[in-house]
Amino acid sequence: MKGIHLLAKHLNVSIGTVSRALNGKPDVNAETRKRVLEAAEELGYVPNQSGRALRKGATGVIGFMMQTGSEITGHGDTFFMSVFDGVQTVFARHKLDLVALLCSSQEDPYDYLRRIVARGFADGLILSSTRRIDHRFDFLAKRKIPFISLGRSLTDVGQPWIDLGFEGMAQASIDRLVAKGHRRIAVTRPHDDTNLGYVFVDRCRQALANYNLALEEDLIFRSMPSEAGGYQIARAILACKERPTAVVLVNETIAIGLYRGLEEAGVKPGRDIAVIGRHSPHARFLSPSLTSFSLNLRDLGISLAETLLATMPLYAESYPQGASRRLWPLDFVPGESDAFSPN
Amino acid sequence: MKGIHLLAKHLNVSIGTVSRALNGKPDVNAETRKRVLEAAEELGYVPNQSGRALRKGATGVIGFMMQTGSEITGHGDTFFMSVFDGVQTVFARHKLDLVALLCSSQEDPYDYLRRIVARGFADGLILSSTRRIDHRFDFLAKRKIPFISLGRSLTDVGQPWIDLGFEGMAQASIDRLVAKGHRRIAVTRPHDDTNLGYVFVDRCRQALANYNLALEEDLIFRSMPSEAGGYQIARAILACKERPTAVVLVNETIAIGLYRGLEEAGVKPGRDIAVIGRHSPHARFLSPSLTSFSLNLRDLGISLAETLLATMPLYAESYPQGASRRLWPLDFVPGESDAFSPN
Repeated sequence: MKGIHLLAKHLNVSIGTVSRALNGKPDVNAETRKRVLEAAEELGYVPNQSGRALRKGATGVIGFMMQTGSEITGHGDTFFMSVFDGVQTVFARHKLDLVALLCSSQEDPYDYLRRIVARGFADGLILSSTRRIDHRFDFLAKRKIPFISLGRSLTDVGQPWIDLGFEGMAQASIDRLVAKGHRRIAVTRPHDDTNLGYVFVDRCRQALANYNLALEEDLIFRSMPSEAGGYQIARAILACKERPTAVVLVNETIAIGLYRGLEEAGVKPGRDIAVIGRHSPHARFLSPSLTSFSLNLRDLGISLAETLLATMPLYAESYPQGASRRLWPLDFVPGESDAFSPN
Repeated sequence: MKGIHLLAKHLNVSIGTVSRALNGKPDVNAETRKRVLEAAEELGYVPNQSGRALRKGATGVIGFMMQTGSEITGHGDTFFMSVFDGVQTVFARHKLDLVALLCSSQEDPYDYLRRIVARGFADGLILSSTRRIDHRFDFLAKRKIPFISLGRSLTDVGQPWIDLGFEGMAQASIDRLVAKGHRRIAVTRPHDDTNLGYVFVDRCRQALANYNLALEEDLIFRSMPSEAGGYQIARAILACKERPTAVVLVNETIAIGLYRGLEEAGVKPGRDIAVIGRHSPHARFLSPSLTSFSLNLRDLGISLAETLLATMPLYAESYPQGASRRLWPLDFVPGESDAFSPN
């Protein structure tokens, strides 16, 4: 409190006035506020947010937890940066700052989150890479820390979530491929316990069953969500005794590696095998063009931020729609990569 | 302090013992430490880092400030994620956490930094997007907050920095192009006051002057560091009365847009115009392959982190090499995009 005492003495006003001026409270006249801010600048006074956080229980920071590591973001990120852009648009309305909490793939996300929460600098959290069973949810719920998850989980603590419409993508892809005569259809899923893998594969299996077709276990390919992962899937497809005639990619970054792996063996998407994937900013450089499912990442970020704030007392009144859970539809983008038909 | 009192009472030990056990101090026996940690977990006690930060002046968090926004990261990021990977490798040794401080392009970086510092949750900072005159440096130096900048500036407060070797890239590119007979050479620079633009253009001008050639003002193209920026440069090159026969791109993300813009007009890099650029994970998908300058981003991250920690008393003894300033060399990667010669 040294700084604020000094400032009050220097200006010959009360500590309360200095505090209200610095905190942007309305009950300080404009002239005084200006004097306080100028003096604070001149004396190099920075209000100590740690002290303020203790008193008000609010840090003004929201954390967005994402996984990093050379296997995941080694070729960069074409997803989160655009989502962040939308999140920041909303937070700017409330002078909230977004920080990206980078959880290395070397570390358990649960241990990481515990430590981050102990550091105590975020008022709320957005979680991604949601697991099938996600202990992070229990941990945050127990501590009453507001959060929203990008993705569902079997762990349910009543928190809001937004998840991508993987069911719709799976259904539409299978319907489309079966209509074109495909019977041996491969699908991909993440290497780890990410929940979307379960949702996606289950729905592909169901959709195939509707046509009396089975999803064969050796046609479910696991991979890292990366170009290298896509390349490995291509190698695995090429090594199949009886090669699938089509493949549906759940992740947006694997198409580039898949194309490369197939083309090295002279197998061309669209001509020799049908490929359906997820749209990404770099998918448009693929040739032939990728038949894919797309979403507006910025809008997703806006919705994540607004839904989170709707659960936080300080901001809820701006978001009367309240907290909710919703599936975010994926839009079909026709391309040439699924032109191949086995008939 | 309620939590720690409760915990001490529950375990029938002193508050000091609980605190020392939670903080990993050596003067607590293993059995007691185990009991304290188990009880803390059971009671859902999270040590309040805000309180701890006030007492110890250490938060265990280092911030990496980067610029975001749809014009900059709208197509994702292929630079920072890999740098973060290297930074995290170093921080993991010291149980430090890296958070990405996302400064929206809508906001002044100086104002943003002031607010982030006021929030008080980082022990040190890594700054990027260094400006020609960078007031962030003065601000941090005045407050004795340790930092390192990725990039130099005319503002010099004695802090360590690492910058990419844009001089070497400029010199080698001009030498190579002039040797191939080029006389009308275009160069690019960032749209804003980023320092690297000055360094790069100045050295290109000098290198050309050595051959008695002038860098013409209308052949210096400003753009956002994005694919859209590259596309605009292509349009501007095509609109030139007397078209340049070569172009050197300072930024890694603009090559993709430049290729697209040129090809729409039937102008092919390597065949109709020489292009030299910066390597990026997606440059390898360009055809013809991009003649470029490359660096190991993960190693850069490691070096940034180690150099920062060398300036921080808590960690300096692990880094006896000390703080330093260094130019990070860019490696030449031959490609086909500069095969065109005007002769």
